[in-house]
Amino acid sequence: MIGVLGGMGPAATADFFLKLTAATPAARDQEHRHVIVWSDPTVPDRSDALIGLAPDPTPWLVRGANALRDAGATIVAIPCNTAHAFVPRLVKETGIDIVHMIDEVAQTLARQRPAIRTVGLLATTGTVATHLYQEWLVSHGIDVIVPDEAAQEENVMRGIRAIKAGAYTAEDRRRLLSVADDLLARGARAVIAGCTEIPLGIRDTDLPVPLVDPTQVLAEAVVRQTVRV
Amino acid sequence: MIGVLGGMGPAATADFFLKLTAATPAARDQEHRHVIVWSDPTVPDRSDALIGLAPDPTPWLVRGANALRDAGATIVAIPCNTAHAFVPRLVKETGIDIVHMIDEVAQTLARQRPAIRTVGLLATTGTVATHLYQEWLVSHGIDVIVPDEAAQEENVMRGIRAIKAGAYTAEDRRRLLSVADDLLARGARAVIAGCTEIPLGIRDTDLPVPLVDPTQVLAEAVVRQTVRV
Repeated sequence: MIGVLGGMGPAATADFFLKLTAATPAARDQEHRHVIVWSDPTVPDRSDALIGLAPDPTPWLVRGANALRDAGATIVAIPCNTAHAFVPRLVKETGIDIVHMIDEVAQTLARQRPAIRTVGLLATTGTVATHLYQEWLVSHGIDVIVPDEAAQEENVMRGIRAIKAGAYTAEDRRRLLSVADDLLARGARAVIAGCTEIPLGIRDTDLPVPLVDPTQVLAEAVVRQTVRV
Repeated sequence: MIGVLGGMGPAATADFFLKLTAATPAARDQEHRHVIVWSDPTVPDRSDALIGLAPDPTPWLVRGANALRDAGATIVAIPCNTAHAFVPRLVKETGIDIVHMIDEVAQTLARQRPAIRTVGLLATTGTVATHLYQEWLVSHGIDVIVPDEAAQEENVMRGIRAIKAGAYTAEDRRRLLSVADDLLARGARAVIAGCTEIPLGIRDTDLPVPLVDPTQVLAEAVVRQTVRV
């Protein structure tokens, strides 16, 4: 049984659940995977926590992981990029088996031919600051470039907050795309939509290079790593 | 905490979870509801069970309801029309508090002004045969008309199966709409999309009368009946 530790945010969790369903080869209900989703929106903001502005979310993640395991989940997916900064402690405290989204993205990018040496990152300020993607990708010989500080706050975080609030406008979208353009101009050959809200705001077809959606990569990895119930 | 007893089918469950998120007035993650989704695709086919072609799904529903309660759910929504035929036994065996989708639809239709006296039903053969909607609506003075037997099997069930299999075609859609047209010609002043797959196949804007989506009605009812976590 697949556990989904979500709620960060709820719309992104629901979107991941849809992707997981769509990624499953199944002709009828009974051929799908058994999934249990814990969507706890009270988890303190992960991005704020990483910069000291919110409590450590680990206890909330531990509670969710334990609830999923108690309900029968044997493998857990976390459709939130920033939350992966807390995965080492979560695993240490619960021993739960995680399909690691950042690792799956790194492996996917490393398999691309012709090889990609530089990728751009659109993510929360917390994810950028914690160097999650930078560390996992550099181990595969891929450099990560990020927006400058002003663009990060005024364009990327603004867009993410608008999507979370259900108030995303054409202007928010224009700003997000301008940041992507800047990353391409600086040499990015792919862009990681490194916050679960980003793929709800811009699409692969908006860019001349691949827009990697980590939750899509995670959904496919989870399906590959599980057998039919 | 809201429990969602789902998996019937998985895509419809994910769609309901999205509707629940969208129906929640929230400007940021932390203002959303805490939701736990049990998506068990191994529940025997509800429609087949009602006509004796599959095992009684009640034990699967009981197992899911108990798992949701053990995880902390205090109210349970079931985004599957046909499964509501098994709700009386589920409640008897678990004592769980259900937001009853069919009852919510009946109340919503009864509130319409000008009053609606006749509605059409697009649903699984099992839902039609069990008279779920017919019984709940007649108590509000509303008549339910259903497709003739051939159209039910060759057009409605065909469309539902195609959507479940991710193989829905323009021809499937044309057939579903032809059944809706027939219900309108026979006097329906609204059509109930009485299987969770139907709203994935046709939309409100496809018809000159309201297409009532029971999972949307359920999502709004659940949000109304719960307070913020």
